[in-house]
Amino acid sequence: MSTTERVREILSWYGSDSPGTLNNLARLLGHGRLGGSGHLVILPVDQGFEHGPARSFAGNPPAYDPRYHFQLAVEAGCNAYAAPLGLIEAGAREFAGQVPLILKLNNKDSLLEEKDPTQAQTASVKDALRLGCAAIGFTIYPGSTERFAMYERIRALAEEAKAYGLAVVIWSYPRGSGLDKAGETAIDVCGYAAQIAAQLGAHVIKVKLPTAQIAQEAARKVYEKEKVPIESLADRVRHVVQCAFNGRRIVIFSGGPSETDDKILAEVRGIRDGGGFGSIIGRNSFQRKKADALKLLDTIMKIYAGQIA
Amino acid sequence: MSTTERVREILSWYGSDSPGTLNNLARLLGHGRLGGSGHLVILPVDQGFEHGPARSFAGNPPAYDPRYHFQLAVEAGCNAYAAPLGLIEAGAREFAGQVPLILKLNNKDSLLEEKDPTQAQTASVKDALRLGCAAIGFTIYPGSTERFAMYERIRALAEEAKAYGLAVVIWSYPRGSGLDKAGETAIDVCGYAAQIAAQLGAHVIKVKLPTAQIAQEAARKVYEKEKVPIESLADRVRHVVQCAFNGRRIVIFSGGPSETDDKILAEVRGIRDGGGFGSIIGRNSFQRKKADALKLLDTIMKIYAGQIA
Amino acid sequence: MSTTERVREILSWYGSDSPGTLNNLARLLGHGRLGGSGHLVILPVDQGFEHGPARSFAGNPPAYDPRYHFQLAVEAGCNAYAAPLGLIEAGAREFAGQVPLILKLNNKDSLLEEKDPTQAQTASVKDALRLGCAAIGFTIYPGSTERFAMYERIRALAEEAKAYGLAVVIWSYPRGSGLDKAGETAIDVCGYAAQIAAQLGAHVIKVKLPTAQIAQEAARKVYEKEKVPIESLADRVRHVVQCAFNGRRIVIFSGGPSETDDKILAEVRGIRDGGGFGSIIGRNSFQRKKADALKLLDTIMKIYAGQIA
Amino acid sequence: MSTTERVREILSWYGSDSPGTLNNLARLLGHGRLGGSGHLVILPVDQGFEHGPARSFAGNPPAYDPRYHFQLAVEAGCNAYAAPLGLIEAGAREFAGQVPLILKLNNKDSLLEEKDPTQAQTASVKDALRLGCAAIGFTIYPGSTERFAMYERIRALAEEAKAYGLAVVIWSYPRGSGLDKAGETAIDVCGYAAQIAAQLGAHVIKVKLPTAQIAQEAARKVYEKEKVPIESLADRVRHVVQCAFNGRRIVIFSGGPSETDDKILAEVRGIRDGGGFGSIIGRNSFQRKKADALKLLDTIMKIYAGQIA
Amino acid sequence: MSTTERVREILSWYGSDSPGTLNNLARLLGHGRLGGSGHLVILPVDQGFEHGPARSFAGNPPAYDPRYHFQLAVEAGCNAYAAPLGLIEAGAREFAGQVPLILKLNNKDSLLEEKDPTQAQTASVKDALRLGCAAIGFTIYPGSTERFAMYERIRALAEEAKAYGLAVVIWSYPRGSGLDKAGETAIDVCGYAAQIAAQLGAHVIKVKLPTAQIAQEAARKVYEKEKVPIESLADRVRHVVQCAFNGRRIVIFSGGPSETDDKILAEVRGIRDGGGFGSIIGRNSFQRKKADALKLLDTIMKIYAGQIA
Repeated sequence: MSTTERVREILSWYGSDSPGTLNNLARLLGHGRLGGSGHLVILPVDQGFEHGPARSFAGNPPAYDPRYHFQLAVEAGCNAYAAPLGLIEAGAREFAGQVPLILKLNNKDSLLEEKDPTQAQTASVKDALRLGCAAIGFTIYPGSTERFAMYERIRALAEEAKAYGLAVVIWSYPRGSGLDKAGETAIDVCGYAAQIAAQLGAHVIKVKLPTAQIAQEAARKVYEKEKVPIESLADRVRHVVQCAFNGRRIVIFSGGPSETDDKILAEVRGIRDGGGFGSIIGRNSFQRKKADALKLLDTIMKIYAGQIA
Repeated sequence: MSTTERVREILSWYGSDSPGTLNNLARLLGHGRLGGSGHLVILPVDQGFEHGPARSFAGNPPAYDPRYHFQLAVEAGCNAYAAPLGLIEAGAREFAGQVPLILKLNNKDSLLEEKDPTQAQTASVKDALRLGCAAIGFTIYPGSTERFAMYERIRALAEEAKAYGLAVVIWSYPRGSGLDKAGETAIDVCGYAAQIAAQLGAHVIKVKLPTAQIAQEAARKVYEKEKVPIESLADRVRHVVQCAFNGRRIVIFSGGPSETDDKILAEVRGIRDGGGFGSIIGRNSFQRKKADALKLLDTIMKIYAGQIA
Repeated sequence: MSTTERVREILSWYGSDSPGTLNNLARLLGHGRLGGSGHLVILPVDQGFEHGPARSFAGNPPAYDPRYHFQLAVEAGCNAYAAPLGLIEAGAREFAGQVPLILKLNNKDSLLEEKDPTQAQTASVKDALRLGCAAIGFTIYPGSTERFAMYERIRALAEEAKAYGLAVVIWSYPRGSGLDKAGETAIDVCGYAAQIAAQLGAHVIKVKLPTAQIAQEAARKVYEKEKVPIESLADRVRHVVQCAFNGRRIVIFSGGPSETDDKILAEVRGIRDGGGFGSIIGRNSFQRKKADALKLLDTIMKIYAGQIA
Repeated sequence: MSTTERVREILSWYGSDSPGTLNNLARLLGHGRLGGSGHLVILPVDQGFEHGPARSFAGNPPAYDPRYHFQLAVEAGCNAYAAPLGLIEAGAREFAGQVPLILKLNNKDSLLEEKDPTQAQTASVKDALRLGCAAIGFTIYPGSTERFAMYERIRALAEEAKAYGLAVVIWSYPRGSGLDKAGETAIDVCGYAAQIAAQLGAHVIKVKLPTAQIAQEAARKVYEKEKVPIESLADRVRHVVQCAFNGRRIVIFSGGPSETDDKILAEVRGIRDGGGFGSIIGRNSFQRKKADALKLLDTIMKIYAGQIA
Repeated sequence: MSTTERVREILSWYGSDSPGTLNNLARLLGHGRLGGSGHLVILPVDQGFEHGPARSFAGNPPAYDPRYHFQLAVEAGCNAYAAPLGLIEAGAREFAGQVPLILKLNNKDSLLEEKDPTQAQTASVKDALRLGCAAIGFTIYPGSTERFAMYERIRALAEEAKAYGLAVVIWSYPRGSGLDKAGETAIDVCGYAAQIAAQLGAHVIKVKLPTAQIAQEAARKVYEKEKVPIESLADRVRHVVQCAFNGRRIVIFSGGPSETDDKILAEVRGIRDGGGFGSIIGRNSFQRKKADALKLLDTIMKIYAGQIA
């Protein structure tokens, strides 16, 4: 684990957090191939819960095994591995000390889809401690009629987590009757989602890559009047990072379902060039053969490390 | 911090509160350029959460940075700075001791607008203590079907806050299916909103500036019969202050979105002349260049201080 | 309250404390005539409890009245006033916001003198909060067979105080069967007492002024071998401050029973010249006429402020 | 119940207490024949527990009946009746609302006498609430090696009582190996005992009538040097009242075992003339026939009321 | 941090511990220059509390500064830094993530020496969490009449620490009326001390280097009959390690006050050759100039790493 000047700079933004929480942030920032660079690549695997096992793993059957994902995160040199309770419990002893863990405290399945979705709390802060995790993870759905219950739940869980020196990662995914499909990734909505997570006290914020669309009329006027640059992906990433306390919170971006590798790598370049802190790459990692995944992750990390353009 | 005769007079109204709460009220009343005068100018910044970051800060990009607002409140000599958890956490260490803080314990975003709005609790009384705040802040929406849940929440939080010696600030904003847009700022409704906040045990009450409209028929009869003076702004401010225990609770007034400076200053004169205690000025402070904001706040404070007419 | 660069430097030493605790340290450091200078003069009045009322107040009967001491601290411009529960309760409402308070959580009377003394807990952390205090105070007696119970009590109280954002002041007074009378103020013992308080997590440490004696044989060898300078009072103060984390904890010094003013002022100069942070002056303040006390405190503050040699 | 200007003045001394506690103090001060005068005559009956029933009641057998004492307090027009749990439980329903009650929370029996006595907690704050008491009572023995445990117990009980709006009465009786028999009532010791009770947060302090003796050498020097007047009983009462925050705490005095009525009345005159707040008269009330007791109490109250010299 | 096969083997011994505790053991085993080797060199600095500041630091004055020790541990590449609350608090934010921390939960001062010593609890498990520590440390004195209170305290603290995923380090130092000075380091006593710590649930056990003496007659018979090899230091280390569950607990050894470097290095070789897990080196590290300390620690680590004989 290397605590570089850049890591110390990032830690300095979290002045209201305890040294315990800083230590766990330092673990996330210091581990893996990008350790110390201020960039992060995190492996998240909650699709088994969220989308169902066959949709998630049938294309690469070894991924049905919980140990596969720990191993993948270790071999690829990811900064952390994030998953729900069951998956973490299934490997935490065997892989103790090998990769920082983020315990996802809430999850949703898709056997029933609701217009205004919510999630169920499926693990506790105490679970995160007994399993040796560096952080808790939590998903909110701004735009859903259920959002306030989610904000209140993470508020309470974050307060508890911080009291015990854990870090807090919020997945901020706009969704629900307040938004249409395109609106979920509109630049104004992504920026707003990042701001909400920051206001709720997140240390690390995960949002989707924004499009150049603007969903809210009240926002459109401002973007146009102030000529906020949102044309290139890098522009939009830069804006979302700005929306998270002017870059003083760690913002990472998720990809979506599998696309071409070229598209994925272009996105990573956009994140890097826009000052994003990194990627959280699930389906594009574990839904292909391990060798292919390692190759893709290797390239992604090289991009973040500035080893390739 | 100056605890003048006027401050002691104001503190004497809060006979059921502990010395701890009086001490924190004295911090609010004693700090800044208006310290000791009994007037307050407070900087509130929750628009990032409530309206979204771009709508809030794109017109003055330095304001994306949480430290900007602490600095603005300090430089302008405001009595206090009020904000949600994330913003307060992002500066509380660096600016410890430099300006009294009010932690907003609930917030609402505007990705989804509901006819009968409510807010989510986004911070706790314990957070206020660990962050060194002098008061908690809380918004209620009288007129919404959700109002009673809000009243009950602030009741419990205020009880806890008072037990720990904190002060309680209630933003009382009529809204919801019980009112049309004009009704939200009608004089009878504003006075009623102030009364509800006072009845809920608020030490400081924040309402919107009232218009001369009367929204409730049952109220109209009384206003007309008793010839309650509501013609001038000063009249209406005087009436709202009267509605808050005949002036024995601190009532401050908020502006709205950016208007001309002349209009803002005219409002401040109306508040002063009507016996209002001060202003809470958000968007008109941080949505313009800092030098311009400092100039406006300087003029406002001079009006309250009686240094200019 | 002025939060100067020096105050910010001092606050930077307390990296494991919450912004709430820093805010309360800033209140102590920022209040009064020495506010912002990094020096403190504190008025402590626990002699009524510790020595009895007549011995404490008969020489200056107005001092029987609890309000007298609040008033004295305010008029003199002290940084803080420290006293047991009863005295604080008797003035906290009337003087709310006028001077930072330190609630002494334990006390001892002298109707019974024991060879290995202890103290009784006479107030709680919650009392400190409801009374609006900036800090708790606690006395330990290193050298007494009862010391460990005292260390354990303050450990628990300090943990609770810090969780609520209060500061912690420890009176570290060596006493008991491990020491003879001269040993209680020996330089090695005073330095050790400061170290123990620092290790127990004190933010502010109060010790007695050390003599040039060395009480412990094991220590004498080191002082002699390393030629630790302890000849002048300034040398000894410098050493005690060094013993408290090399000056990274606030160390203040107490006087004893009434001496000549010249001797008191010479001591203050020694504290200042040795890099001590200030004085806690009880009997020499309230056991003389108020005008005389104000004059003495004025001179003392001028010495610390560098206004007179 | 009359809340006179004098009562309001007395209540004003308790600025850190809640209105609930003030209300209960007002009940004590406002009830009975002396109600509103600022003087109190309280009937205490704990001798059955402390000295044994026959020693207490055999001389006036109706006093074996718990109802006797309620009835006596009501008929005599006492301000309050104070007793242990059992006695209060035995009459609280029947006499509900007829006389303010003080529940003694600790007691000692005399089947075993110890050099350093303590007491057992025999009732709780919750008991006081369910029994409708206005105050809790508690005995401390300054001078006993057990004193600190007693101080810590009443500290915790007083904190709880105040949180529930009860008043706190402390019986401060110096006793134990730190004192000889004469020392227990020496003027310096009585004054010190009053101070300790005040520092522990008592609202009402009960001490024994002091003699002109001085027990502590360190105190003697001061009494002599400052020429503290202690010759007459009134002088000594005045001094003890001064020792209790310069008269800003209610101090009442107890008699001892039965003496001549003339002596008792002379003592009452001394208390009155010295500015004492009243008497607590047990054995001289209930150890004589009721008619005689009523006559004596009538005379005492007339003295306090200024109706006779 | 490297989790090698050897580290995984060591972790496999702790089958009843949670993955959280294994993760923290992995942090200790994986950090620093010896990270992954299964050997540890730990820097402990509690002498300021235990022996007094001048005796501890006057020989190397920069060591008065709490940051010095963090820096030394980082520069030397130690596996961990162990210290009491005050020292850890004074550097935990600045050095967050740079070296695993062990919070010493109990301490003793030497202003009073008792024949049967104990220690005071000076920090809590919650402190360890908020400060980001990997383990708690605790000292027991087998042989003291106070030992059982110490065993019971660490039992409760260890239970709590394990519930939160922390590791437990026990300093097992025989001392007290059950032993003479020589007996404290007798081989039978050292082995017994290691066993007691293991039985109390320690993950890491720290003992003193044993001499060839046998202190207990009952033990002597067995050592002689079974011809337990205890002649060489390596023999004795091997025996102590055997006494700690046949090597299935991590046992590390402490040096004493400054000796010659040759002697220290010979001891390290003995520890290595006897299968000891490492050294905890306090006074020989921080009581010399930093450059000298780094040189000594470098040589020690090379011996453990097998880079020099």
